[in-house]
Amino acid sequence: MSRDETTALDIQWNADGLIAAVAQDVSTKEILMLAWMNEEAFQKTLETGQAHYWSRSRQELWHKGATSGAIQQVREIRIDCDQDAVILLVDQAGSGACHTGRKSCFYRKIESQNGPVLKFYEA
Amino acid sequence: MSRDETTALDIQWNADGLIAAVAQDVSTKEILMLAWMNEEAFQKTLETGQAHYWSRSRQELWHKGATSGAIQQVREIRIDCDQDAVILLVDQAGSGACHTGRKSCFYRKIESQNGPVLKFYEA
Repeated sequence: MSRDETTALDIQWNADGLIAAVAQDVSTKEILMLAWMNEEAFQKTLETGQAHYWSRSRQELWHKGATSGAIQQVREIRIDCDQDAVILLVDQAGSGACHTGRKSCFYRKIESQNGPVLKFYEA
Repeated sequence: MSRDETTALDIQWNADGLIAAVAQDVSTKEILMLAWMNEEAFQKTLETGQAHYWSRSRQELWHKGATSGAIQQVREIRIDCDQDAVILLVDQAGSGACHTGRKSCFYRKIESQNGPVLKFYEA
């Protein structure tokens, strides 16, 4: 049975052994961040109920908020049709998900009129 | 100035020349899909106001909905702190974003109790 209709979990890890993980605020539905998970991070997230990612820059397991306090309590996990991306619906602790102190990492807007980027600003 | 505070757009394309793009329903905030964009797809999206992606399976520019009718009108584009992921806030035409006919590609939920996956089902 193909990955998109099976009820068996069959995660499609990429060449680096990763899947994309989008953290979304469970109450407001705001998208907080996009990060990566390897199998260990995924298992740790299931075990602990707190978001764990794989830090590509540090090349290590990353328990989100372990040092900053910005823990993400995972309320629900969803996976997409081809099983290479997940959504974590979370309660975000602390000031927010972003290392800049903002609630969401997606704090800048790109505006354009028929092509060229006209504005790029925090909004 | 670092990528996370600059007001200059400086997209961090990955080794394959891609960024992750999350399509989110502009009204309901439901996450519809996660796909990839190369520079051409990004520029076409800005030019036309309709979501264009890079199809990794077909290795070609993908005007979402061009054949299925499931066009995504882009209402807003946001970019994250390290400039390697974007959110497209869209009005989704047709039955939905997913090739299975569902509104969202994230139609399955993973449930667990302290580790092992207990349930994996459409919800």
